[in-house]
This record gives sequence, C-alpha cells and structure tokens, in this order.
Amino acid sequence: MEDYRDHIIPHDHTIQRSDRESKQGHVARVIWFTGLSGSGKSTLAGQLETYFHNQGYSTYILDGDNIRSGLNNDLDFSDSSRKENIRRIAEVSKLFIDAGVIVLTAFISPFKEDRQSARDLVGDESFIEVHVDCPLEVCEQRDVKGLYKKARAGEIKHFTGIDSPFEEPEHPDVRVNTTERSQEDCLKELIKNIEPKIGL
Amino acid sequence: MEDYRDHIIPHDHTIQRSDRESKQGHVARVIWFTGLSGSGKSTLAGQLETYFHNQGYSTYILDGDNIRSGLNNDLDFSDSSRKENIRRIAEVSKLFIDAGVIVLTAFISPFKEDRQSARDLVGDESFIEVHVDCPLEVCEQRDVKGLYKKARAGEIKHFTGIDSPFEEPEHPDVRVNTTERSQEDCLKELIKNIEPKIGL
Repeated sequence: MEDYRDHIIPHDHTIQRSDRESKQGHVARVIWFTGLSGSGKSTLAGQLETYFHNQGYSTYILDGDNIRSGLNNDLDFSDSSRKENIRRIAEVSKLFIDAGVIVLTAFISPFKEDRQSARDLVGDESFIEVHVDCPLEVCEQRDVKGLYKKARAGEIKHFTGIDSPFEEPEHPDVRVNTTERSQEDCLKELIKNIEPKIGL
Repeated sequence: MEDYRDHIIPHDHTIQRSDRESKQGHVARVIWFTGLSGSGKSTLAGQLETYFHNQGYSTYILDGDNIRSGLNNDLDFSDSSRKENIRRIAEVSKLFIDAGVIVLTAFISPFKEDRQSARDLVGDESFIEVHVDCPLEVCEQRDVKGLYKKARAGEIKHFTGIDSPFEEPEHPDVRVNTTERSQEDCLKELIKNIEPKIGL
C-alpha cells in the first residue's frame, strides 16, 4: 500500500540558518545582557523573552540556572574557568542562532575582552549587547541572593564589584539603567531598540 | 504619543519548554544517531532534518562540523575527551529541547555507557536512539573521508572499529541497515518510526 512517505525525494539541499529563520519568520540574534550581579539582567531578559514569545518569535534564555548546573558544571570561578564559561556560552549561542532561535544570555560577563570574543565568534551583525546599568551600591543593597554579603565576608573570592572588576561596555547596543527608570520602562526601551533588528 | 509598547504588562510567568513546544506545534526530542564512521549517520540525519523542516517542524543538527570546530575545539581524542565530547553534546541537546527544537545528533558515540548517560541527562521520554547499522567492511571500503586508511596505517589512534570498539546498541529505538536497504528506504523507516513521536 502506498502512503505519503513513498513520495519523499531526498533533497541534496542541506537546511541552512536562512531556511530556519524563514520558517521562524524572523532573523536570529544573540541578545547579550551584561551587568553586575543583582542589576536586573535575568529579570529583564525573562520579560523580554516573554514579550518576544507572545509576539510569536522563537526564543531561548541561557543563564546561570541552565548553564552552570549543566554544560558548565565542570568549571569553577578561577580566571581561566570564567573565560571558558563565556567561551562556551558564546559557542552555544552561535548554535542557537544557526538554528534560527533568538537567544538571550544573562551572565555578568565582566570582561571586555570576553564580550568582544563572544561578539567575534557569533558575528558582529548577530550580536546585540545590552548593558544593564545599576550602581554597585544599589546591587549590593538589593543583594537578592545574599552573595554580596558573602563576598564582603570573604566567603566568595573574585566576586565582581567587590574583589574583581566589572569593565563597563563603552558602546553597548542598548543601555538601560534600572535605578533611574522603572522596570517596565527599561523593558519598553529594550523592545524599542531590539525588535526592529529581528524582522526578516 | 502612545504606542503599542505602552500596554505591555510584564508577566510573572516565565516561558517554559511546554510554551515553546506549543509555539512550534510539536514536542521537542533528541534524535541520537550512533554508528561507525561512514555508516551514513550524517547523510540520514541531514535528510531527516530536511523532511522535518519541510513539514514545518523546528529542527537543528549537531555534528562534527559545528561541534568539533566550535564548542568542543579544546578536546582531543583521548578517552576522557571523548567522554567529555559526548557529555557536552548531550547538555547542548538538552538546552535545544528545552527551547522546543527537535535536535538530531550525528556522532559515532561508540560507548554504551556514554549513550546511556546522554539518555539519562536528556530524559528517557525525550531521547530517541537511532542505530545506523553498517558492517565495518562496508564502511571501510567506502572510506569517504580516508580515515580508515589512516587508522590502518597507524596515523590515527583509537579509531572506532580499528583499534577502539563500537559497542552496538542492543535495543535502539530505531535501527536502519544502510547496506541491506536503500537510502530512501532507510529514511522512510526513520520517518515512520519517529514522526509519530513528535506530535503535540
């Protein structure tokens, strides 16, 4: 008995990023959030993803929750591990955009050199850097996860802002200040700046 | 002036795998191809992806081309590196299915233990093992990449089938034999067995 599978003709054409983007109805980009612990990166990335998802875009978030406990669970917080952490996140982001997915990354990523490497690896045109700007004092006062307290007590070493630097982006694609403006205003600012860049 | 962005209400709801699967219109699965070098894994995975893509599914392939040169470019072919290679591929696959994407992996993955680890990590219900079965003699005769010749000459060490074992899956979800049946028949067999598993 014949069925629909009898009419499959194997294509020589391999599916490419552009085919996957066409299927999704938008281009794929890496939206790279950088900022201090407690600045609001994950919150904003989550809200931006929710917005995009509701608009029908195909999205994914990479953050500490799914990366540190999984792919990067062999890495510690030494300088070399932190570099390797960012390298792998950039490599995985590159796979996601090749798959036609908009990927939002929410990691402190304190070093300019590492962020530049990520941009180079992913491709300049596909990389959108978002600086979530919030003074250290405010982040430390919020201290949502209690990490600043531990860092001040010396229980965590090389903590960004305390005994390890955060190198601010000079020319991020978007900068939002989560102390000067409301969360909703920051989200609107992100949407205004980023959504026009993902249309096909 | 008001615009549509004034009406965004940030949701508390974080987007989950099930939301992304609903958006894509299918569930996400890892289709894990295993078999000797030259057995036809990449070819079949590519054709299956093309078929799925043309059916409107959201798909991605992980293979040597995008993994060895990228995420895993720090790994060699030692036993520990081969284990780490498979671990990272499984972790990345897990991220992709969390993103609602059907991911096809095409790696020799010769060791039962590693394939079982991948299945455990991804989750049994999301993991479809495909054994691309082809006798060593045939793979070696094909020798598309000239690797068997090099392995026989001792220029490549620990080459699967030559001086490193391939542990055949005892109960793969699907097994196709690329010598006994045509490529098109193998593809049909894959579609027949796998497509019913990805409907929502």
